[in-house]
Amino acid sequence: MFAPMTDRFAARVRAAYDRIAAVDRPEIWIGLRPRAEVEAEAAATDPALPLAGRLLAVKGNIDVRGLPTTAGCPSYAYEPAQDAPVVARLRAAGAVVIGTTNMDQFATGLVGTRSPYGAVRSAADPSRISGGSSSGSAVAVALGIADLALGTDTAGSGRVPAAFNGIVGLKPTRGLVPADGVVPACASLDCVTVFARTLAEAERALAHMVTGTGAAPVRAPGPWRIAVPDIAQLGELDEGWAEAFRSAAERLEAAGARLRPVDLAPFAEAAAMLYEGAFVAERYTAVGDFIDKHSTSDLDPTVAGIIRRARDIPAHRLFADQAELDALRSRARTALGDADALLLPTTPGHPTLAEVAADPLGSNARLGRFTNSTNLFDQAAVAAPAGTVNGLPFGVMLIGPAHTDDRLARIAALLTPPARVAVVGAHLTGQPLNLQLLTLGARFDRTTTTASIYRLYALPTDPPKPGLVRVSEDGAAIEAEVWELPPEGLGALLAALPRPMTLGSVELADGSRVPGFLCEPSALHGATDITPYGGWREYLAAPTHGAAEPSHPWC
Amino acid sequence: MFAPMTDRFAARVRAAYDRIAAVDRPEIWIGLRPRAEVEAEAAATDPALPLAGRLLAVKGNIDVRGLPTTAGCPSYAYEPAQDAPVVARLRAAGAVVIGTTNMDQFATGLVGTRSPYGAVRSAADPSRISGGSSSGSAVAVALGIADLALGTDTAGSGRVPAAFNGIVGLKPTRGLVPADGVVPACASLDCVTVFARTLAEAERALAHMVTGTGAAPVRAPGPWRIAVPDIAQLGELDEGWAEAFRSAAERLEAAGARLRPVDLAPFAEAAAMLYEGAFVAERYTAVGDFIDKHSTSDLDPTVAGIIRRARDIPAHRLFADQAELDALRSRARTALGDADALLLPTTPGHPTLAEVAADPLGSNARLGRFTNSTNLFDQAAVAAPAGTVNGLPFGVMLIGPAHTDDRLARIAALLTPPARVAVVGAHLTGQPLNLQLLTLGARFDRTTTTASIYRLYALPTDPPKPGLVRVSEDGAAIEAEVWELPPEGLGALLAALPRPMTLGSVELADGSRVPGFLCEPSALHGATDITPYGGWREYLAAPTHGAAEPSHPWC
Repeated sequence: MFAPMTDRFAARVRAAYDRIAAVDRPEIWIGLRPRAEVEAEAAATDPALPLAGRLLAVKGNIDVRGLPTTAGCPSYAYEPAQDAPVVARLRAAGAVVIGTTNMDQFATGLVGTRSPYGAVRSAADPSRISGGSSSGSAVAVALGIADLALGTDTAGSGRVPAAFNGIVGLKPTRGLVPADGVVPACASLDCVTVFARTLAEAERALAHMVTGTGAAPVRAPGPWRIAVPDIAQLGELDEGWAEAFRSAAERLEAAGARLRPVDLAPFAEAAAMLYEGAFVAERYTAVGDFIDKHSTSDLDPTVAGIIRRARDIPAHRLFADQAELDALRSRARTALGDADALLLPTTPGHPTLAEVAADPLGSNARLGRFTNSTNLFDQAAVAAPAGTVNGLPFGVMLIGPAHTDDRLARIAALLTPPARVAVVGAHLTGQPLNLQLLTLGARFDRTTTTASIYRLYALPTDPPKPGLVRVSEDGAAIEAEVWELPPEGLGALLAALPRPMTLGSVELADGSRVPGFLCEPSALHGATDITPYGGWREYLAAPTHGAAEPSHPWC
Repeated sequence: MFAPMTDRFAARVRAAYDRIAAVDRPEIWIGLRPRAEVEAEAAATDPALPLAGRLLAVKGNIDVRGLPTTAGCPSYAYEPAQDAPVVARLRAAGAVVIGTTNMDQFATGLVGTRSPYGAVRSAADPSRISGGSSSGSAVAVALGIADLALGTDTAGSGRVPAAFNGIVGLKPTRGLVPADGVVPACASLDCVTVFARTLAEAERALAHMVTGTGAAPVRAPGPWRIAVPDIAQLGELDEGWAEAFRSAAERLEAAGARLRPVDLAPFAEAAAMLYEGAFVAERYTAVGDFIDKHSTSDLDPTVAGIIRRARDIPAHRLFADQAELDALRSRARTALGDADALLLPTTPGHPTLAEVAADPLGSNARLGRFTNSTNLFDQAAVAAPAGTVNGLPFGVMLIGPAHTDDRLARIAALLTPPARVAVVGAHLTGQPLNLQLLTLGARFDRTTTTASIYRLYALPTDPPKPGLVRVSEDGAAIEAEVWELPPEGLGALLAALPRPMTLGSVELADGSRVPGFLCEPSALHGATDITPYGGWREYLAAPTHGAAEPSHPWC
């Protein structure tokens, strides 16, 4: 089994590099490894390792042995002697690094445009920003080049780009993942984060990243308790985002969570402090010396300006800000009470590259409105997709106390809505395969009919099965039941489907479309048109079924 | 929105009663409520409640106001003044009780046959036992009559019937769910349990059942650590069960868990003590007086015999057994170390009704081999389906320390294998819809071809799409890629599928079948046969594509 498995790992690497070429987004990468080298490494991976063959992209401020660590600044680059511990741990678990990714320089920004390596564009719409500072990592995952990517998050850098690219970003509890081997932004706040296209994949990676310990706070039993602020407290949002946020809250409620109001004021006040207050001085501590000594052309002017201005912030202001933050943290704790999580949009909106260029500081500050306070308050967060608005990804965050990382992920999993399926034959209530639906977790929704654009055939299978066929004329309404089931149940139904049955889009009497049972074209050879019965059950109940004429349905 | 929603609740009730009539399993029920009454109650349910409209069956030893509590013994019956707290909590959350269910009398048995209300037969095979003692509850859920059902579990009564009927059974940490209003079996060990067809549904219900508190033990970070005993330590198993157990362990490993060996001896020794030792005396404490005074014909002879024999067990034996159990508990803790869970088959096999009738005590004792020790050791357990053996459900348990209920459920969720999908057109690597696969969490598996039984058409859609059609002659091998993705990703792919595309079973070159892209029959009107190109990419790359003749593929 060893050889074929590792062949597949190598094939995945080749597919990833083909994709890198196809998407033409050179700005994603700072240090892309040579394809042959990665392919060889993948082929040599022990397939028994838990993350064997997963392709990993690493943000440019995290050490990867063999690639320069740049933090988005070529003149700052150094050659690390070893992998950062978090990279080493993922590699030990079988992940294969493909390269280091572009970022807002020195992780100072939430936009993804503040880099001499180029502005990173959103995976979904190249006229819009990717979000940052973990810009290249998020886009590499969203475009399917990497399975996993590491980011960092001080003020939202591991979450804003997740939201803008329709993927998951886990911002672990501070200290849970080692930040050694990472160029600091604000050392006391920085967290290493992980991106993946699904929550399960991100969680699997995170399990291998953590080395810190800490117990989750004891939880009183009962349904999840979710704090949801009033829309008015969110401030101005992009068009359609308030509705999308409300839908996300309703989805959690429909999944059994209890919603409760919360005063967002302490969060908003703390968020404002992150850039306006003295905390930004910690960025000068990290790289101020370098910036002062290297007024090179590869410094991003916005980033350099922010860090230079931080040099002269007096320590007494920091003391004052820390006292204020302590008070805000206490107010936030009171506001949340025993809520398991605070639900927020990840950002207030998704700007274009042009909008950010026109107002580099203002547009950036707006993006951090909901993310900035999380690390200041020592909270954990999950950023997860929650549908689309005007065709672009919309994302929300679930924020909770330190060490509730697992809990937040479980709540985020509830954002996935249930699926539906229309059945017209053996899966109808009382028919032999109905039990299959039930065991997949389906619940009866309603009895209805299809739109009057179908004909129904008794297929010459053993036992006979019904074939629903869309026609361009002489269509009829066929009895159907709609069942609601979890998306994995719908996937399992499809996985177990025998030919000649198929599942496709079926139009119902009310004009809505749901996945439903159809059949392969070849199944109609010798089939009998039973449309006049109006449904499969009526056909079975008829004393002389089979009386209708065999016919070819559409030719 | 109120009226339509509650109409649906009432329709679900009608469907459930139709199903009760259709399945002809009268032995499931002890006290089935009148349909009109349940329908009216469902219609009056506040649809905003978290479990609104879920149909609930309740084991016959748990108080439901308005129905007699029988514990499986008509002459023992009493009319409870109120719902047991756990029933009251589920009703307050919106669940609608449809009735009380059959059980091994006084919850003394793991078979489901020890009842004057009739032997309960497995949902999947009526010649086999349902398992017990929560027999009717499990079968009501498995047959899709109830969405949720309550059971109890002293020695395995909430898990054995889950395994035999292919559903999920959660056996919570002792004390987490109140056992007031429940006829005791062994009061110090009894737990109220819940059955559902999916893990998510069971967990949702459990969240509303718990009232006890208790913190999960602190967990060192990293992948799940699963203790898996050597097959030899499991003793004799039914044919094919060892392989199914091994597959379940491999599935967890493939999902990222680390497996480790464990010595099962202390678990086996404690299991043997439950019936052979002095602990059975607690059953006499519960109902011995009643049995002594009511030698009525409605006592199950096996149950009455077990409880009567327990009368004369001396207390000094109980002291000795308790000391021995303490030592075994300590050995078990050492054996498990810091494992998150112990993986075990739920039972060693699934007997027929005839086999149980031939050896009522021996067959029952065998069934408890893996379940008996759990409550003695103060552990939590999840019983979950893990595939089928010879067409019948096979189930496993994940057992862990008290208060790790949530953790065990998350590990159990990993038992669901990933799905696959074969793509032949716009979802191929480099094609426009490939990104959709990636965002659903798909990973490239391999490039291959279909079996040589298909033809490929360019459909007259805009943009053109490929239609893969199975033919009875002149078939060819068509280029295909296989992608692996989570089942919910496959469900989401189907939910978003536009007509005329469908998904059905596609045969590959190696003879295996995977879900893959096909099309509706009507899509082939005016389609162009492009089979000679060998694949969609080759067709697109050809300078004069469209040169092939338009044709009707199969008629």
